Amino acid sequence: MGNGKIKFVLASASPRRKELIGHLKVPFEIMTLNVPEESTSTNPINFCLDIAKVKGEAVYSKLRSEKSEALFVVSSDTIVCLGEKIYGKPKNRDEAHTYLMELSGKTHSVFTAVFVHYYNSGIEETFGFVEESKVTFNTITPAIMERYLDTGDSLDKAGAYGIQGPSLTFISRVEGDYANVVGFPLSRFVMEAEIHFKKWLPEEDLWLNLF
Amino acid sequence: MGNGKIKFVLASASPRRKELIGHLKVPFEIMTLNVPEESTSTNPINFCLDIAKVKGEAVYSKLRSEKSEALFVVSSDTIVCLGEKIYGKPKNRDEAHTYLMELSGKTHSVFTAVFVHYYNSGIEETFGFVEESKVTFNTITPAIMERYLDTGDSLDKAGAYGIQGPSLTFISRVEGDYANVVGFPLSRFVMEAEIHFKKWLPEEDLWLNLF
Repeated sequence: MGNGKIKFVLASASPRRKELIGHLKVPFEIMTLNVPEESTSTNPINFCLDIAKVKGEAVYSKLRSEKSEALFVVSSDTIVCLGEKIYGKPKNRDEAHTYLMELSGKTHSVFTAVFVHYYNSGIEETFGFVEESKVTFNTITPAIMERYLDTGDSLDKAGAYGIQGPSLTFISRVEGDYANVVGFPLSRFVMEAEIHFKKWLPEEDLWLNLF
Repeated sequence: MGNGKIKFVLASASPRRKELIGHLKVPFEIMTLNVPEESTSTNPINFCLDIAKVKGEAVYSKLRSEKSEALFVVSSDTIVCLGEKIYGKPKNRDEAHTYLMELSGKTHSVFTAVFVHYYNSGIEETFGFVEESKVTFNTITPAIMERYLDTGDSLDKAGAYGIQGPSLTFISRVEGDYANVVGFPLSRFVMEAEIHFKKWLPEEDLWLNLF
């Protein structure tokens, strides 16, 4: 059953994910490795799950090779989808403008995949899930578009917007988990992790102290 | 038509409303007066609209008595409703605990009323609206409840929670305007204000520069 001390690692550099997971009780470390974020899938659910998995695998393998004993590695990927198109982070302001013009006046989906690698005393487990939320934009007027692009909020975010700040001038509706749109479906993660910890550590109440 | 300089006043002390309205281009001042926040209405829409109106009226009357020329006073009130019960801010931790236990595992409504008093060169206008969003809580476990109450996030917020922070560990779903749950329906306000400014100032493009 291990020593009851599980190293919790977030394999993501996103300050928004760090903040969300910071609301949990469990202390965690951040570790990221440069891996190609690629998927051959055109299905958005598989696409982001592939990427979340590969991000987490790299960190998990490295920590396991360093003989870390009990490990819980969480990785995640967020994408924005409208119709068949998958939107990642825009390369520059022009691309951000293009993305936002395409999303203007419409409802799109935000998918966040979460993947967990767990290791404890010779037992290796994984689980993953994808949460979908829908977001509706008002028609973005030229004045509001310029003002939003000027804030620089677009550049490091899938779909060229972050839901927490100035984009709220044109976001009229969310349907689903709000934290999922920010970049990590926190309440579902708590529930899923609880289910798995109950299986993995039936005699311990460590999972009770995580959240 | 006035001098084109309209004093924009937010009649609310809420730091969350200040932050949301800060995403607009227009500079604004904050002014609040102590008025009894009362309504005889049991209908949640009328209830919060009454309170928003009375908050704004006090500030508007004071500024008008000081001969402010062109004025745009925005006031607002947010309430949480489940069934027939209207939840305001809890008095203390025990009441916060009671509110959250009642909301746990259920979907409730958040109503935010916005009321505008406008004055320019002898013309006086008002408008108001109420936006409803729905929020679903997971069942809040005792551990998560204690942890959330410990953060102190409950105390100055209708329904004993703020959606921006640690409550995201148990909030599973939002349906509607997210900013409305924070405390001000920003995207609808932009649209409503635009409609009214077009009527009030047909020959000016001042409203274009507001947002």
